[in-house]
Amino acid sequence: MIDSETLMGQLRDLLGPLGWSEDPAVLESHLVEERGLYHGACLGLARPADTDQVAAVVYTCAAAGVPVVPQGGNTGLVGGAVPHGGVILSTARLNKVRDVDPVNHTLTVEAGVILADVQKAAEDAGHLFPLSLAAEGSCHIGGNLATNAGGTAVLRYGNARDLVLGLEVVLPDGRVWDGLRTLRKDNTGYDLKSLFVGAEGTLGVITAAVLKMFPAPKTTATALVAVDGPAAALDLFTRAHGAAGDLLTAFEMLARFGLELACRHVHGVRDPFDAPHPCYALVELTSPRAGDDLATALETILGDAFEAGEVRDAVIAASETQSAELWRIRECLPEAQKHEGGSIKHDVSVPVARVPDFLAKAEALVRAELPGVRPCPFGHMGDGNIHFNLTQPEGADTASFLAQWTRINGLVHDLVAEFGGSFSAEHGVGQLKVHELERYRSDVELDLMRRIKKAFDPAGLMNPGKILAAD
Amino acid sequence: MIDSETLMGQLRDLLGPLGWSEDPAVLESHLVEERGLYHGACLGLARPADTDQVAAVVYTCAAAGVPVVPQGGNTGLVGGAVPHGGVILSTARLNKVRDVDPVNHTLTVEAGVILADVQKAAEDAGHLFPLSLAAEGSCHIGGNLATNAGGTAVLRYGNARDLVLGLEVVLPDGRVWDGLRTLRKDNTGYDLKSLFVGAEGTLGVITAAVLKMFPAPKTTATALVAVDGPAAALDLFTRAHGAAGDLLTAFEMLARFGLELACRHVHGVRDPFDAPHPCYALVELTSPRAGDDLATALETILGDAFEAGEVRDAVIAASETQSAELWRIRECLPEAQKHEGGSIKHDVSVPVARVPDFLAKAEALVRAELPGVRPCPFGHMGDGNIHFNLTQPEGADTASFLAQWTRINGLVHDLVAEFGGSFSAEHGVGQLKVHELERYRSDVELDLMRRIKKAFDPAGLMNPGKILAAD
Repeated sequence: MIDSETLMGQLRDLLGPLGWSEDPAVLESHLVEERGLYHGACLGLARPADTDQVAAVVYTCAAAGVPVVPQGGNTGLVGGAVPHGGVILSTARLNKVRDVDPVNHTLTVEAGVILADVQKAAEDAGHLFPLSLAAEGSCHIGGNLATNAGGTAVLRYGNARDLVLGLEVVLPDGRVWDGLRTLRKDNTGYDLKSLFVGAEGTLGVITAAVLKMFPAPKTTATALVAVDGPAAALDLFTRAHGAAGDLLTAFEMLARFGLELACRHVHGVRDPFDAPHPCYALVELTSPRAGDDLATALETILGDAFEAGEVRDAVIAASETQSAELWRIRECLPEAQKHEGGSIKHDVSVPVARVPDFLAKAEALVRAELPGVRPCPFGHMGDGNIHFNLTQPEGADTASFLAQWTRINGLVHDLVAEFGGSFSAEHGVGQLKVHELERYRSDVELDLMRRIKKAFDPAGLMNPGKILAAD
Repeated sequence: MIDSETLMGQLRDLLGPLGWSEDPAVLESHLVEERGLYHGACLGLARPADTDQVAAVVYTCAAAGVPVVPQGGNTGLVGGAVPHGGVILSTARLNKVRDVDPVNHTLTVEAGVILADVQKAAEDAGHLFPLSLAAEGSCHIGGNLATNAGGTAVLRYGNARDLVLGLEVVLPDGRVWDGLRTLRKDNTGYDLKSLFVGAEGTLGVITAAVLKMFPAPKTTATALVAVDGPAAALDLFTRAHGAAGDLLTAFEMLARFGLELACRHVHGVRDPFDAPHPCYALVELTSPRAGDDLATALETILGDAFEAGEVRDAVIAASETQSAELWRIRECLPEAQKHEGGSIKHDVSVPVARVPDFLAKAEALVRAELPGVRPCPFGHMGDGNIHFNLTQPEGADTASFLAQWTRINGLVHDLVAEFGGSFSAEHGVGQLKVHELERYRSDVELDLMRRIKKAFDPAGLMNPGKILAAD
């Protein structure tokens, strides 16, 4: 073992001024997470230029017994990239698109490529990379993979794990696993790729990936549909899914309160309906066939649903601009909520068929616990993934409302568990939900996870304290 | 430790006459694999009735230090279920469909349910379970999951791993992991599910699974297309995929020789074309939309391809019967080959875009090595997965031809590796390809796999010698 000063000198020499910083002003933005839940500390920030440098940083830190905390765009919501000591390993300079193969429908990218740039590279090749989420302008694909990111296209295309064919990973001892295969089928041993995806950097640092591209949609039909509530939204989802199958690429839900907040606080957002409605579904069909008449298909679905009493009213976008306006209502919700004070948040999932029952019980629960609270549930109904966010009562003190966070989380997550659901549908565990993992997962499951961690990272130096408590 | 006789007595008492057999006549069919490559040995056959009995069998064997070899329908092609000592644990009596949820689009089934019965359960619920392969009438879904089975629907729906939401697994020490979650999204720690899928029973015994169902196709269009060769087939695939996207649910390829064998040996199969052609593609579009005019879509694709010189001729099925006849040509190939003597087989994949180059080089290679050999390549071109099978020269001695198996495998797999491909696209490693795994995977990758095996099964008693050599 060597002391910290010696290690920092080694890293300084290894990485040069572009690749190493101890400047507090530079470090500051790397030590916090978006919601301000954590403020970390570190010895310095490593910004290696390539995989070999990543390996050298990890090896050097391992030899010194110092933790490494991988960090992409630092847009995560569970503190997974916030360090408490050790060295931050930023993927920012691993930003090359290494290969685009339009016939094989694959992209090979380094971990630090921004998600929007990955989408762009696919588009330039005439294809689609479907992963899409709020932070896409700044999050790194490596972080998306490390957290198995979700977003709005999961219904049709799956999570990040489903979009990757191969990985390159620097292991906790500094060795490099080259698993950058570009194959659709490969049954040769344990699925290491799926294990690193979603491991939140605790088993190694993803440095590059082979991603799947899909045929680009050529036509789209989008509607905002007013319904009586989540049960009607579920009926509509079942109908649309049965009628359109995988042409149904998005089915998002929001409550009236969310739409009101969006209209009140976000410039340019307006209620597209003349009257208020209790609940809304954003429904989108896309087709890879040019000239496919999706507008008629969507009208037929909505017409049938109207006759069945599932739908109160609907607005079908007549142009791309109108479609973007409808999407904006859904996508600006996190921003809109901020203007109303504090929010206690839950990123939960239940079986799709149980979303309405869950929401009814969860709302009753939180209204009883927090008089005046304003629930603002929205999210990916087609995946059973609801962002069950609770806006503070009007005029309440934000700090004392937010002081209830842990207690309310506990009650809601207990209810989620009764519904066979998950306390983290897409955001991951990070450090925020380590105790939830311990509470809601069986001893057997935790034991298996600890065995994997121990097998890959016996010294416990790779992003310690994330997913599993540090030893 | 106890002796074998004591263990057998314990298992006899535990399982009763329905659940335990030492009768050589009963054991015989469980000790061989389909191609006759292996003939195993065992103490006896356990047929537990439920998960608790599976756990008791595994625990009892572990306490005695005796290996357990899980076995489903015993239809695997790499010897993965053939024991060399120890106890066979059959999933045959774990044959209940535990739950069907049409709204959640999930099926919960026990490991011993036959694949065709899983398909049927989905169909009865108005949906589709897409996994489809030659052995579906006898293989068990547990075996399909343990081997991450492929088949003809991978292009659109993925491998078995992509079709599972949750698992129940009996671990090597007899504990039960209840991971039977029915969620579309759940980011709570390491992906244990994906690790057990494809582990070929070496990390535990899958006893039940939650499977995804999909909207049932309502219309289908099928064509057999005659082309100049694999390069033209690839051009046609690229065109069809771009034009139809995920409506393209199958794209299979076969060479002229395969069609000739099918017509010669399989009752009722005939060449649908007037003239011979070098190569054929079986193309299928399906749509979940009733009334979707796929025939016109397919005609347009084939018309454009004809004008571009990619297609020589095509037969579009005018009825379900005709469609079944076209599929029969492709599906009877393994059977048809048997009538021509021995075949040296390869289940390989390369990047989709490289299939034509690979096939050209591979054919030249084997023709030089085996004068008179008759290559019969066919398979899942859309996945880059080719069954590169080599029929013996006419009139050759079968035994001396098959004596070349290992040598020719080595040469072909070396070529596959040059193309960045896989020596086992869908059949797995079993015991047949343990040395291939050691040869073609890096030391780092092998080390990670061995660490996982050691972490889950430190005594090495769960299906030893499969995937990884026994210690």
